[in-house]
Amino acid sequence: MASYDDVMSLSVRRGFLWPAVDLYGGFAGFYDYGHNGALLRRRWEDLWSETFLGLSDNYYLIDTTTILPEQALKASGHVDHFTDVLVTCTRCGESYRGDLLLEAATHEEHEGLSPAEIDERIRTLKIRCPNCKGELGPSRAFNMMFPVGVGPLGEDRAYLRPETAQGVYLNFKREFEALRRKLPMGLAIIGRAYRNEISPRQGTYRMREFLQAELQIFFDPATFADAVAFEDIEASKVRIAWASEKNEPTAHDIPAKELRDRGLPAWYVWHLVQVQGFYLNLLRVPRESFRFAELDERERAFYNKIHFDIQVKQESLGGFKEVGGVHYRTDHDLKGHEAASHEKQSVTVGTSKLVPHVLELSFGVDRNVWSLLDLSFHKGERTVLRLPARLAPVPIAVFPLVNKDGIPERAEALHAGLRRHLTAFYDDSGSIGRRYARMDEIGTPFSVTIDHDTLEGKGVTVRERDSQQQIRVKEADLLDKLVRLLSGDAKFIS
Amino acid sequence: MASYDDVMSLSVRRGFLWPAVDLYGGFAGFYDYGHNGALLRRRWEDLWSETFLGLSDNYYLIDTTTILPEQALKASGHVDHFTDVLVTCTRCGESYRGDLLLEAATHEEHEGLSPAEIDERIRTLKIRCPNCKGELGPSRAFNMMFPVGVGPLGEDRAYLRPETAQGVYLNFKREFEALRRKLPMGLAIIGRAYRNEISPRQGTYRMREFLQAELQIFFDPATFADAVAFEDIEASKVRIAWASEKNEPTAHDIPAKELRDRGLPAWYVWHLVQVQGFYLNLLRVPRESFRFAELDERERAFYNKIHFDIQVKQESLGGFKEVGGVHYRTDHDLKGHEAASHEKQSVTVGTSKLVPHVLELSFGVDRNVWSLLDLSFHKGERTVLRLPARLAPVPIAVFPLVNKDGIPERAEALHAGLRRHLTAFYDDSGSIGRRYARMDEIGTPFSVTIDHDTLEGKGVTVRERDSQQQIRVKEADLLDKLVRLLSGDAKFIS
Repeated sequence: MASYDDVMSLSVRRGFLWPAVDLYGGFAGFYDYGHNGALLRRRWEDLWSETFLGLSDNYYLIDTTTILPEQALKASGHVDHFTDVLVTCTRCGESYRGDLLLEAATHEEHEGLSPAEIDERIRTLKIRCPNCKGELGPSRAFNMMFPVGVGPLGEDRAYLRPETAQGVYLNFKREFEALRRKLPMGLAIIGRAYRNEISPRQGTYRMREFLQAELQIFFDPATFADAVAFEDIEASKVRIAWASEKNEPTAHDIPAKELRDRGLPAWYVWHLVQVQGFYLNLLRVPRESFRFAELDERERAFYNKIHFDIQVKQESLGGFKEVGGVHYRTDHDLKGHEAASHEKQSVTVGTSKLVPHVLELSFGVDRNVWSLLDLSFHKGERTVLRLPARLAPVPIAVFPLVNKDGIPERAEALHAGLRRHLTAFYDDSGSIGRRYARMDEIGTPFSVTIDHDTLEGKGVTVRERDSQQQIRVKEADLLDKLVRLLSGDAKFIS
Repeated sequence: MASYDDVMSLSVRRGFLWPAVDLYGGFAGFYDYGHNGALLRRRWEDLWSETFLGLSDNYYLIDTTTILPEQALKASGHVDHFTDVLVTCTRCGESYRGDLLLEAATHEEHEGLSPAEIDERIRTLKIRCPNCKGELGPSRAFNMMFPVGVGPLGEDRAYLRPETAQGVYLNFKREFEALRRKLPMGLAIIGRAYRNEISPRQGTYRMREFLQAELQIFFDPATFADAVAFEDIEASKVRIAWASEKNEPTAHDIPAKELRDRGLPAWYVWHLVQVQGFYLNLLRVPRESFRFAELDERERAFYNKIHFDIQVKQESLGGFKEVGGVHYRTDHDLKGHEAASHEKQSVTVGTSKLVPHVLELSFGVDRNVWSLLDLSFHKGERTVLRLPARLAPVPIAVFPLVNKDGIPERAEALHAGLRRHLTAFYDDSGSIGRRYARMDEIGTPFSVTIDHDTLEGKGVTVRERDSQQQIRVKEADLLDKLVRLLSGDAKFIS
């Protein structure tokens, strides 16, 4: 069980992540990744790409600009509808998000209310400024996008993109032509998005600059169900928390078949099962710490018809928190761009001509990294980050037991050899116990020690992080053994 | 020899890159990467990381925010000095970069002039508005950073970062503590930077949103020369174009030792040799198409003491063009942040206490990708992208010769097997010749064809891109053979 301070303190100490620009007193809502955080994030991104681009041989990664002109975001609806409700104190001038003020007063969620509704509840609940107890002014809608002026006089109005998705939609037709002209076609972006959050929260949960990994699957609603092997997963139990049971402590395990029978499209349920598999099998999230939470109409983004949040339970954040979502966006976005640009977005596939519908698998990369740190944090006599081996920033450490008798030279040579194939860290400072402890804190699953016996041809010691057990491995077998341990193809003690 | 249109047309047709937001008539200075461009760029980035982070075991990748508060960019000098000279027409209102107006009139470079100097030359040369022939108004300094207002009222003034480097400097102390507390220490970022260019140019050469790969090496000037093995490279010839010989058509091949004897620091020369090796040996740039161009005091950025541009000759852009630079930034940046933040940036290493100096290896990722497309473009009877095998977006293609007799099933199974290890593309549409031609255009070095003989256990055909020669390989040996071909460990015909 990790507290927020546990996770943040480890993150700072071990180079995972920390508040940005602390040299100048910090910069609310912005975080930087240190050397271990950058590696951990990269491994998560690689696993994500492998898993979700691997769902079809017609799914690809692209990359598009983070600044978009106003026209495009007007067409998508973001200029008019991507708003939060802002409440400003009439006395001290401090600003708040209306729904969060209500949440703090009632301990319930209040998403999707209009400014007038928020004003009324503020009056009813007699909420005053949390900062100075002053009277709160009237609420107003506040657009969360950051405006950017492009050109010498800033004359071309643009915004930092609030989601990666729009970059994909703008390129749909071009990629459809450059690719196989068939559906489903998937285009993914892993990249930054920006939201001028009124109240950035602690940690990486609500940031102003953040990373998304989003896959947009373009499909024909008439045939998409045929493209998925529903029969293979119909018995799979999916963990669901219904919108109507918001305050239920636990999720239900519902067979995929039953979800379909309740009215969710088969292709939607099939993708829920894939996402759940990613979390439970690859990221090793405990089953009871995972759920899909249905969003009701008020809570859903304006472009979504079916929307389940992906949630992971994190003690450091006080319980289940959103780390992504599975969104059926219909043909809303392509139709919007077609209407505004007067460029046809329809395509012909076989005998049918249509504007494709979109299923979006959306993930907050920073939130996922944080959840990995939270879930793998274990504190007892020692602090250990029990990351799945594939995700460990540094999978292998190499230590000379002592710094004499030719042992360091032997250890350095072995390290240089391993480094050609694996990320391996060499450490010769401090006691061997302290070195193990440092690697435990960054989640390194295997540490290799070179000692006097090594010089006599008796191999090296390999220590496993969680069990702290040690085995002796011949140098000639070491690389192969480590590779198989990391891939899960070999057991530590065979 | 590739024209600009050759490269751009191939890029669009084959999913490398294209002007962003063309749906709304384009967005000058912004480009998007399609599915093949994203892969090509990723392979370049991986090779870059392997090469330059591989220079030491104390060099790491980090990742920091693209929005930075004004204070930090004031301290770095960018708020006051990161300017171009802007000239606006008094009649039509069109704006121009002063130096580019002079360059167009004289065909010489005019970097580093003040607004007054530019006004004088405009008068002397009688330059008028290129658009309407109107009189040009007085020049003024124009800051190239994009301002961003953060917070509910946009009250926290910030900018999109103009270079990745500042993110590294802001984190120097934190990483020094989290790492080994030794120098040299290297921190790299591969990420976006933004400049509100007055005159974005064609292609990816001068973009408003672009990607940099920058390694900042922090060092002690008293000991850095000892950290490099100069003796290993002293005879290496480095291709140099001196600032005093700006209009020389060719570079000189100068031994590293001679460069050091002329006064360049040994550690600086050693890094020039490493950078040159990256271009000549790994990216396979022809020697005569590569050079370092010295910048004189006027041309150098305000923070650089020694500055050589890395230039690659590209026919599509009219000759040698900058793709990066090797910059000795001294202690300018850390001292600036120390003075502004009142946080000490000095560190103690051994017996000496110092604010480290910085050597920056800076690369424009988009410019490098473009140069790869330019250099590898070959047009004759067929269009072939002769990319080094390691950089090819899709290293392997798999084709069924015909779509009957069980051949597609066999080909699909083989493709599925290869895909677990390599990026492999399956194509069954059109004649075999057309399929080869498509792969040639994206630079796929090896194409595998399954035919009737395959069904009889006689292996598959592997065709090599450049020679168009074909060999027969047993299915059991195929993966191993392809892996060794791609890594350069095997010859095509052995």
